[in-house]
Amino acid sequence: MSKLWQKGYSLDALIERFTVGDDYLLDRALVNADCLASMAHAAMLAKIGILTASEREALQRGLAEIIRLADRGEFAIRPEDEDCHTAIENFLVARLGEAGKKIHTGRSRNDQVIAALRLFGRAFLVEFQQAVLDLAEALFGFARAHEQVPMPGRTHLQLAMPSSVGLWAAAWGEELLEDLVLAGAAYELNDACPLGSAASYGVPLPLDRELVAELLAFSRVQNNVLAANHSRGRTESVIVDAVEQVMLTLSRLAQDLILFTLPEFGYFSLPQELCAGSSIMPQKRNPDLLELVRARAASVSARGLQIKSILRALPSGYNRDLQETKAAFLEACATGLLSVRVMELVVRRLGVNEARLAAGFRPEIFATDRTLELVAGGMPFRDAYRQVAETPSAAEAQDPREALLKKRHTGAPGNLRLDVPAKRLAELRARTAAWQAQVSPKLKALAGFDVVLYR
Amino acid sequence: MSKLWQKGYSLDALIERFTVGDDYLLDRALVNADCLASMAHAAMLAKIGILTASEREALQRGLAEIIRLADRGEFAIRPEDEDCHTAIENFLVARLGEAGKKIHTGRSRNDQVIAALRLFGRAFLVEFQQAVLDLAEALFGFARAHEQVPMPGRTHLQLAMPSSVGLWAAAWGEELLEDLVLAGAAYELNDACPLGSAASYGVPLPLDRELVAELLAFSRVQNNVLAANHSRGRTESVIVDAVEQVMLTLSRLAQDLILFTLPEFGYFSLPQELCAGSSIMPQKRNPDLLELVRARAASVSARGLQIKSILRALPSGYNRDLQETKAAFLEACATGLLSVRVMELVVRRLGVNEARLAAGFRPEIFATDRTLELVAGGMPFRDAYRQVAETPSAAEAQDPREALLKKRHTGAPGNLRLDVPAKRLAELRARTAAWQAQVSPKLKALAGFDVVLYR
Amino acid sequence: MSKLWQKGYSLDALIERFTVGDDYLLDRALVNADCLASMAHAAMLAKIGILTASEREALQRGLAEIIRLADRGEFAIRPEDEDCHTAIENFLVARLGEAGKKIHTGRSRNDQVIAALRLFGRAFLVEFQQAVLDLAEALFGFARAHEQVPMPGRTHLQLAMPSSVGLWAAAWGEELLEDLVLAGAAYELNDACPLGSAASYGVPLPLDRELVAELLAFSRVQNNVLAANHSRGRTESVIVDAVEQVMLTLSRLAQDLILFTLPEFGYFSLPQELCAGSSIMPQKRNPDLLELVRARAASVSARGLQIKSILRALPSGYNRDLQETKAAFLEACATGLLSVRVMELVVRRLGVNEARLAAGFRPEIFATDRTLELVAGGMPFRDAYRQVAETPSAAEAQDPREALLKKRHTGAPGNLRLDVPAKRLAELRARTAAWQAQVSPKLKALAGFDVVLYR
Amino acid sequence: MSKLWQKGYSLDALIERFTVGDDYLLDRALVNADCLASMAHAAMLAKIGILTASEREALQRGLAEIIRLADRGEFAIRPEDEDCHTAIENFLVARLGEAGKKIHTGRSRNDQVIAALRLFGRAFLVEFQQAVLDLAEALFGFARAHEQVPMPGRTHLQLAMPSSVGLWAAAWGEELLEDLVLAGAAYELNDACPLGSAASYGVPLPLDRELVAELLAFSRVQNNVLAANHSRGRTESVIVDAVEQVMLTLSRLAQDLILFTLPEFGYFSLPQELCAGSSIMPQKRNPDLLELVRARAASVSARGLQIKSILRALPSGYNRDLQETKAAFLEACATGLLSVRVMELVVRRLGVNEARLAAGFRPEIFATDRTLELVAGGMPFRDAYRQVAETPSAAEAQDPREALLKKRHTGAPGNLRLDVPAKRLAELRARTAAWQAQVSPKLKALAGFDVVLYR
Repeated sequence: MSKLWQKGYSLDALIERFTVGDDYLLDRALVNADCLASMAHAAMLAKIGILTASEREALQRGLAEIIRLADRGEFAIRPEDEDCHTAIENFLVARLGEAGKKIHTGRSRNDQVIAALRLFGRAFLVEFQQAVLDLAEALFGFARAHEQVPMPGRTHLQLAMPSSVGLWAAAWGEELLEDLVLAGAAYELNDACPLGSAASYGVPLPLDRELVAELLAFSRVQNNVLAANHSRGRTESVIVDAVEQVMLTLSRLAQDLILFTLPEFGYFSLPQELCAGSSIMPQKRNPDLLELVRARAASVSARGLQIKSILRALPSGYNRDLQETKAAFLEACATGLLSVRVMELVVRRLGVNEARLAAGFRPEIFATDRTLELVAGGMPFRDAYRQVAETPSAAEAQDPREALLKKRHTGAPGNLRLDVPAKRLAELRARTAAWQAQVSPKLKALAGFDVVLYR
Repeated sequence: MSKLWQKGYSLDALIERFTVGDDYLLDRALVNADCLASMAHAAMLAKIGILTASEREALQRGLAEIIRLADRGEFAIRPEDEDCHTAIENFLVARLGEAGKKIHTGRSRNDQVIAALRLFGRAFLVEFQQAVLDLAEALFGFARAHEQVPMPGRTHLQLAMPSSVGLWAAAWGEELLEDLVLAGAAYELNDACPLGSAASYGVPLPLDRELVAELLAFSRVQNNVLAANHSRGRTESVIVDAVEQVMLTLSRLAQDLILFTLPEFGYFSLPQELCAGSSIMPQKRNPDLLELVRARAASVSARGLQIKSILRALPSGYNRDLQETKAAFLEACATGLLSVRVMELVVRRLGVNEARLAAGFRPEIFATDRTLELVAGGMPFRDAYRQVAETPSAAEAQDPREALLKKRHTGAPGNLRLDVPAKRLAELRARTAAWQAQVSPKLKALAGFDVVLYR
Repeated sequence: MSKLWQKGYSLDALIERFTVGDDYLLDRALVNADCLASMAHAAMLAKIGILTASEREALQRGLAEIIRLADRGEFAIRPEDEDCHTAIENFLVARLGEAGKKIHTGRSRNDQVIAALRLFGRAFLVEFQQAVLDLAEALFGFARAHEQVPMPGRTHLQLAMPSSVGLWAAAWGEELLEDLVLAGAAYELNDACPLGSAASYGVPLPLDRELVAELLAFSRVQNNVLAANHSRGRTESVIVDAVEQVMLTLSRLAQDLILFTLPEFGYFSLPQELCAGSSIMPQKRNPDLLELVRARAASVSARGLQIKSILRALPSGYNRDLQETKAAFLEACATGLLSVRVMELVVRRLGVNEARLAAGFRPEIFATDRTLELVAGGMPFRDAYRQVAETPSAAEAQDPREALLKKRHTGAPGNLRLDVPAKRLAELRARTAAWQAQVSPKLKALAGFDVVLYR
Repeated sequence: MSKLWQKGYSLDALIERFTVGDDYLLDRALVNADCLASMAHAAMLAKIGILTASEREALQRGLAEIIRLADRGEFAIRPEDEDCHTAIENFLVARLGEAGKKIHTGRSRNDQVIAALRLFGRAFLVEFQQAVLDLAEALFGFARAHEQVPMPGRTHLQLAMPSSVGLWAAAWGEELLEDLVLAGAAYELNDACPLGSAASYGVPLPLDRELVAELLAFSRVQNNVLAANHSRGRTESVIVDAVEQVMLTLSRLAQDLILFTLPEFGYFSLPQELCAGSSIMPQKRNPDLLELVRARAASVSARGLQIKSILRALPSGYNRDLQETKAAFLEACATGLLSVRVMELVVRRLGVNEARLAAGFRPEIFATDRTLELVAGGMPFRDAYRQVAETPSAAEAQDPREALLKKRHTGAPGNLRLDVPAKRLAELRARTAAWQAQVSPKLKALAGFDVVLYR
């Protein structure tokens, strides 16, 4: 079947391959979202008199059928279709005739693809936030379980001061909660309906943009039609940046785990079923997944950069360059979510070796504590520091647990204040629930059944 | 004078040059922030009995003197000082003796530099948000002044559909307001006090972290001491990412202006005093500043990437790598703010040439309008599209102003709804005011006078 | 069938999905290369007595069969195989029993995958260099065909000085030839055989690495076995950087064509069959492919960055992070080659509109020529410049062709010296031929037939 | 004094600050190069009759004086001068009158700045290659000194197979030699004279471009004048990419050293004078310089990306965006060279702790050796692998030195073939010498004395 814009001449085959790219494959992720958006668009066209009630019902049934086919992996998008939008319109025209030919009234693929990406992105952010909160909860559970287990604290990777497994684990959890500030900002930016902006300049039809936004459960219409088109790629980049911050936290956690599960440290252990082997070395149990988390943090960063590089210096209005942002966006989302889930598994199965942690303490790790004892005795800090520095080897070993308990100010190893992040975690759980409560019932009402938008 | 950690041996000179880098120059931007944080730290040390009242007063006076010296450009940080923190402590010790030697009690340069960067970042975000709002306001003013002036709307840079100068200008304004969602998230992340986290593991002293946070007008203590240290670089990267989104918007606006001020378009004109010339070609009036905005968007992106690349895969606890994030952060902030201000100047002085804009219309730009007329007459959209496509040259020219007025749905050229972004702009003005009201009186109370933290 | 390292326990399913990633799909591009390398490895194992002659023959036949299956798209790599290396060994064991179990003697997947990537990379570089030379040749042909056609020369996109279509087209051609310096460097780095380095530390077997290198037509053995392993990813990054430079040149050419085919310029025209349409606007003929070239230059840059980011700060020896470089490498190669071929098509079909080019000249474009006339008359340059600058509008229009002919120094519009790049192009054609002559006969001798390594 | 293009109106002050940026500071690095290029230009102008012999002599003296002033730090470039080119012309006009006003005849700042950057880049590449070779030589010396010292070989950072300090150290050396392939390509690209291309379109004067190239010791004229201008930024990016590859190698070496100097490994030790301390922890000796090398590798990558991002999609001819590439280029060069020198110091002072290296061996590290013993006894590899895998703990400890000696194929620990890189190093030393021999005498002949172009 033909492309939406085809009118009697053919694209050169090489050019066609080049311009279509992988869109026909990538768009499998967007079929359901596009059908939902089309349902809302059809409802609005009916309301303003472009569609008859029966045409609208036919389109609604046709779109529902496409969703069911897609859910079974049976809705084909062929390279000659270019993308899911064309495949869907072609399907509707073939099935419904006139009604199908009317579905594109008052919209362009430009606003259509943005709408689909928004629905996808919103569903992704809900899943992603949940997964990050699950991981954070696992980390706080781990912190609680090993709250006062001494662990050598390091700076420059060298022995620094006494620390605890509790402090270490809770730190990652708190960082993840902070990272979610960006996910919230991304959700807010994403929560605007672009439909009706058409090719960037609106249409001479009395579109009811507010109705479409309401049906699709968006908090607002994205007002200026040109601005709506300009947000293609940008919103995706903000979502990827939110994923990126989480990945950076995970990559640092992975780096710690790669090091601290080494025999030379032995602080933690990974169960065998999380490790891979070597094709040549029979003895190997390697933390491949941690290395991949570390590497994929770089991949997600590169994907965010890719999107933003494409956007930079584009002239106003739609430009085809924007197509090239889609693969980057979809891949970064998938990588991020899978990485978070893998890390939750790691944390839940991570073993703690208290003996090896204790053995990691050497007397010099108490030098700062000794310095501050001198300060407590009245010596100015810099003098105490210099006195201890002269004979650091003379620092006497202390009991690590006692050393921890002396650090009792807010957030210190002897006073982790796990209630603080627990409260924040609860707030973010409530935020997820609120997002779902705002969206799910409306989408179910629109489609007549629950539609999976991210999987 | 010696480095804070110096104890009887010397660094190799080459190593010293390599490790100090440009810190002694960069830190001029942080002197005031560090002094303020030290005032709060001293007040807290006095409260918990580490400092006597007179020691605290002496430190307060000494720190105030440093700020005044720095404001006059007379506070020197030499390469052998390494950074501002050392220069300040050395100054206090030289001036005050014992009291000076006590200022570093219960803190490390790690939490100290984070605190200074937070104060700097907070002041920057206020200035930056104000500047972006000023630019957005200029764009909305421009949109209002030329609201119904027809302008060819483009996609793929080719003629697409009728548009207006109002739509075009307001689009950039709305995008900037959206970009500020990220600035808000950055502000929230930045608004947490790291002091008391020391070298990452707390100290065996009853530090009152809440008091310090209150004195420095932070909304909260950054709880977990290790997480507080891990946020070095990350918070900066989030601020830079917020600047980056604004820069991307500016670079696209700059790209449009570079094109549309060309003689071949002539839609807009830049006054001579904003243009530069050529060393060889006497006739040239070049839009250098727009080209530099375009290029500097790439620079800010690279700086954000640099910071995040440095963070990736760092092991836990402080690592010296973090120092390398400072120049990137400071430069990206300065570039971003200056670019916004330059673009405001451009918008305020931009000329509009209605005749050239009108001349840009060609009959084919009305093809979609013609298609939708057929739709209004009952023809299915896809059939109407094909019919018009067969003879696009037959599309009749219409009056551009009338064409605009037919697009009356929300956000379309005939109904820009400038009240929507006006309301949002007012909210963001209020946000700026609230930030300032939260911070300025407390900092003035702490220092005894107004301290400039970003300039 | 099992993974090469499997030994009685199972990976968690989520972990398996995460670690395998897309390797089982990506590796379809490497099957032939891996089979060729295995043929050479088997020949060497036979020579040193590890394989009997009949075992080696059986392996040779089995590997040839795999190549034929793969060429028909019938060699399956399933996710549970992890990668092509496992699928191939499993196939050989299933088909040949003992002999199959011996093929992995003295190698690791680490050196095996590097070898496959080298063979792939070498074949790619030959194709890529040829394609770039074809494009350069098309540009020089275009330059010759329109050598003295006047074209406004621009700086800052503003009118600057008289130029010609010949100068413009030949410039891109010369730049592409310069870009190939990097392709040559990449070829040189890639032209070293890693086999025998095994898991990074060699093996206690008398491997004949020189024989393997000779059979696979590499110029040298990559000596140090640890260095050989460290070159994974790095060589790929250098190849991608070579592609990137070509893409940057193409993106600039694409940018020019996007602008200069606009109605407002009309200098050049693209035939309809290279343009795409719009789903809503019936009149559109858009240069989508040029926009995609522009965007994909950003994608290739991001892919190169991704690889290098992954490499940074990896500890010595193989790390699983390296797997994450594969998709980036393969995609960047494919994107680069296709883009070059598309641009050749564009250049070959590009129309030139002399009338519009001539109309682009305005009097002020001759201001510098007028200045230098005054200089020729004895006035110091800076004085002449100032005099002309005072009344630039007074510059008289000149005949553009005459203005061009006055620029007769080397490389100027009146003296393009197309013989210079022609000579260079011939040298690079000879380099391609030499590469092929070094490689093709040896690989054919090894396999017994021609094996396609890049498609 | 005025800008070169100033003609009776003033730039807005904010715009001026924005457009000049840091050029007036950065250009201190280019003054000598610009003076040399101007000497060659003046000689050529004299030859073609634009300058009288006495004017040329005056200019030669004036330029020599500027070099001497600059060498003493006494040649000022003020913000209002914009850049060194203006400062130099203004100086010459003030000092020499008419002759000074003639120096800019037949050139633009566009080709002028490219020429200066080429001279700078060439001098830098000589220094950089020498420094890399010095470091490689230090590594080979270290490898020879500890050639057979056993060291645990790792993959995934886990124990893998027996290795040696010799293999480890020589690997880095060989990698650096490979990295220099890119430095060679960069040198080749850089070795072309852009002068005479003027503002991109040549001039109507009989410039003798070959003479200028010869005087400045370039191997060739960069032919097409537009292509010459387009190479601005690109050549710099290729140089930065060459530096980047070296930095990636250094960052991996630094990562190894950070880990292997930890007390938990203790394989190597850094002398105290290369380590820094902590402001709070008196006992600390931190490997700050290694962390900074690791971080600065990311910075150099970001700088390369920045340059290439700026170039992407620029229209043809000079664009002001290119100015923004200068700081990135200069900083990346300086960072790269200093890092290499610092790492040479590290290698030369690095201690080896044979006892700790030996203690790192655990029985399972010999599992592959045991497997291959079974293979030597006739068992198929995969069967032997599975047999050893069943009881990896049963692997018996072997003598590490003996295990090394059994790996005798090319490049293995028992046969490092240090002669191979030694030969390559000698070739590269000869390449440096050839570069210098081509350049230094000609530049001295031009200036009359040795001019320092990189410091």
